[in-house]
Amino acid sequence: MQLQKDTRNISMMMDFYEMTMANGYFNNGDEDKVAVFDVFFRKNPDGAGFSIFAGLEQVMEYLENFHFDPQDIEYFRERKLFSEEFLNYLKDYRFRGDIYAVPEGTIIYPNTPIVTVVAPLIDAQLIETALLLQINHQSLIATKTNRIVRAAAGKAVSDFGARRAHNVDAAVYGARAAYIGGAVSTATVLAGQMFGIPVSGTMAHSWVMFYDSEFEAFKKYALNYPDTTVLLVDTYDVLRSGVPNAIRVAHEVLEPMGKRLKGIRLDSGDLAYLSKEARKMLDAAGLEDCTIAASNSLDEFTLRSLNNQGARIDGFGVGERLITSASNPVFGAVYKISAVKEGEVYEPKIKVSETPDKITNPGLKKLYRVYNSDGMAIADYITLAEETPDFEGRVEYVDGVASWRRGVYKNCSFKELQIPVFKAGKCVCVRPSIEEIRDYVKRQLETEIWIEEQRFENPHPHYYNLSPALHELKMKMLSEY
Amino acid sequence: MQLQKDTRNISMMMDFYEMTMANGYFNNGDEDKVAVFDVFFRKNPDGAGFSIFAGLEQVMEYLENFHFDPQDIEYFRERKLFSEEFLNYLKDYRFRGDIYAVPEGTIIYPNTPIVTVVAPLIDAQLIETALLLQINHQSLIATKTNRIVRAAAGKAVSDFGARRAHNVDAAVYGARAAYIGGAVSTATVLAGQMFGIPVSGTMAHSWVMFYDSEFEAFKKYALNYPDTTVLLVDTYDVLRSGVPNAIRVAHEVLEPMGKRLKGIRLDSGDLAYLSKEARKMLDAAGLEDCTIAASNSLDEFTLRSLNNQGARIDGFGVGERLITSASNPVFGAVYKISAVKEGEVYEPKIKVSETPDKITNPGLKKLYRVYNSDGMAIADYITLAEETPDFEGRVEYVDGVASWRRGVYKNCSFKELQIPVFKAGKCVCVRPSIEEIRDYVKRQLETEIWIEEQRFENPHPHYYNLSPALHELKMKMLSEY
Repeated sequence: MQLQKDTRNISMMMDFYEMTMANGYFNNGDEDKVAVFDVFFRKNPDGAGFSIFAGLEQVMEYLENFHFDPQDIEYFRERKLFSEEFLNYLKDYRFRGDIYAVPEGTIIYPNTPIVTVVAPLIDAQLIETALLLQINHQSLIATKTNRIVRAAAGKAVSDFGARRAHNVDAAVYGARAAYIGGAVSTATVLAGQMFGIPVSGTMAHSWVMFYDSEFEAFKKYALNYPDTTVLLVDTYDVLRSGVPNAIRVAHEVLEPMGKRLKGIRLDSGDLAYLSKEARKMLDAAGLEDCTIAASNSLDEFTLRSLNNQGARIDGFGVGERLITSASNPVFGAVYKISAVKEGEVYEPKIKVSETPDKITNPGLKKLYRVYNSDGMAIADYITLAEETPDFEGRVEYVDGVASWRRGVYKNCSFKELQIPVFKAGKCVCVRPSIEEIRDYVKRQLETEIWIEEQRFENPHPHYYNLSPALHELKMKMLSEY
Repeated sequence: MQLQKDTRNISMMMDFYEMTMANGYFNNGDEDKVAVFDVFFRKNPDGAGFSIFAGLEQVMEYLENFHFDPQDIEYFRERKLFSEEFLNYLKDYRFRGDIYAVPEGTIIYPNTPIVTVVAPLIDAQLIETALLLQINHQSLIATKTNRIVRAAAGKAVSDFGARRAHNVDAAVYGARAAYIGGAVSTATVLAGQMFGIPVSGTMAHSWVMFYDSEFEAFKKYALNYPDTTVLLVDTYDVLRSGVPNAIRVAHEVLEPMGKRLKGIRLDSGDLAYLSKEARKMLDAAGLEDCTIAASNSLDEFTLRSLNNQGARIDGFGVGERLITSASNPVFGAVYKISAVKEGEVYEPKIKVSETPDKITNPGLKKLYRVYNSDGMAIADYITLAEETPDFEGRVEYVDGVASWRRGVYKNCSFKELQIPVFKAGKCVCVRPSIEEIRDYVKRQLETEIWIEEQRFENPHPHYYNLSPALHELKMKMLSEY
């Protein structure tokens, strides 16, 4: 299958201040000074214990294609704020920086650098909004979907959200993120075509209402799709009309063709009650293999409740609350300068704030995940890039939140999380397939991430630790203000 | 200025069931039967008294461009569900239907048909998701932004939301909707380039942190932009460092050039307190004309609170809570079949439901706005299309919610709200400019819409009335189930 590509030039997807700053840096002669920016976030959505990193592939595509067309430069010229030298410089501009990032699908935690940009100041500044927007959106939807998938407890979750998504990209890249988060399919055709995600869908109420009777509508559908007949049974009355007509079609239309009724779908009413009653009716009719799917304003809490009530639902179509992450529709990753290269040295920078959790970690850094001897992830550990910890020996840490808590990791192994993604403007990493990214999410949750971090209510916070050297640098810089 | 066009083919932006149904209708020989679908919504977001209709221009562009490329047809072929005759039919497929809609920018209310599609069944079915997605997204953001603009009480509101938007389209079309809703500008360059919306933006904290001192950073900015210097004053300490340095730049850098400091921006801390103190300091320095802008997780309630506290803020940059409509991120417009043409007659269809407010209004209908003698909109009135009410004489109504309330409009005038947008697949309406749409919103709110419907707490519900003939048809059809 030939995958459809998004061929738009979205280089103009920036905040205007990036361009006023870039022009200023250029005119000041600072455009080639190398700066370090970190992408990190401060809180998991929905009060959760972790998030899932998604959107990196689209960031890479954006960076590879980043350029300004003549009409873009003309647009800037018409603003009458930018120097002709700078506008001329934009003509051949391409991204020249280095990018380090955790692999797509990595379980991520607050306050840790998930992406680090080391690039000439202009390059680093111009990509801020496009980077954040892509990562914020896809991480939000992957994280939300995974909550719904966990609540489904092994039953299939499909993305039905396109019509309530925040426009086309939100539907399409949201479907991609949902698949990474564990959905089994999407109803969004364009997402199927672009990413090879399985698509699903059968009929709307309009099909049933168009024909003169529900039975006729079901029969016509079965004759068109005898191998994949799934009937929407709630247009008139689920138990008195929908399910009986579905059973009649199974017996009178499909079975004479040697086919079985594949499933029914409920889209309104009391899904717990109706699914149990429908199950009894289907079983009594010898249709034990006919599945029951349900949809209608579902989320992780309604799914858990349905499962707790013993609802007989085999698969869930989840729409608006998945595709908008309705209970928490913002993923708040930010982009902060942490160092400027002077000669061969990275001079650390810090953002101070009256709000302690808005204070940044200074310097060019490295991020490690720390595993205990059972292979469980017990902490994330941040050091200065120039440190060379003795991972076979003694590794000390300071708690990143409660700095009076200090300790030494015992019997632990360490994995550096960020990998080089771009070097001098060229992509240098292998791009995993969407299936590999999806499997990676699943594997981490099954083998590394504590169940205590995965629960919805009061999840255990993941430990976030700093090396003593980083902690001391931070304290020293803060005390200078 | 040459506006940038979105040239993507988004014809594949559909739910898969639209294609399974279309193939079924085609194989059943029903593809040319004409059906009527209504777009309506059931609740205003945020418990508001009204919503704003937006996104129609993009719907028109989508319909004019609607076609399937060879790779699209190949994608469907690979699904192994569709007949070759149908796939062949898609090759030359173009939208053939009629569309009626309220003009973009119209104040809209629940349960009224804001868009009506009268089209061959396949055509009507294939456009469902793209239509809903565009209208749901832009109406959501226009409606939310207008709340924020009303709370700003005449002060400027700018869209700063791109980095938290649900991907590129959400930022771009969200900026468009925000402008329609009353924002004065956007920070999103691509939106400025596509729609001619004014763009704004100056500097991030990174500009201030990059240079060795705040004063140096401010000075360098002022030298680059002496006519439009707006300084971000909260990187270190607003009152002890940021504002004094801004004043120093005004006096030492700008005034010798014959320029004035245009403004400062606050992005953290207690905005009410800081703005009042900063105002005093600026005024004492002779900078009465220097404006104060503020940003940082604002919405309509924080803006109202700031105004109530006497904050001295002249303009607001509003981000994530505007661009995601965070408090209510879903606009729930739906698309329901209401009639099927048999010969020359439109046979009404109704969706019954155990939930009364999910019951649809049957038939091909007309929507009127009813005005009293002062020109205030007192109700929306829905009739069957075949009715010819005597608007100069006696017009009876039945309340659409509480059907025991009946009455006769007295001294009222009536305006039909839907206009023809497409006829037989061709656009037949004049496309207003974005400025005209924005002005139309403003004019309605200033001259026609009750202030009691515009308040945030317990707004008065707009009356939604049916003609007696429509009411009786609905009751008759319901009693048949």
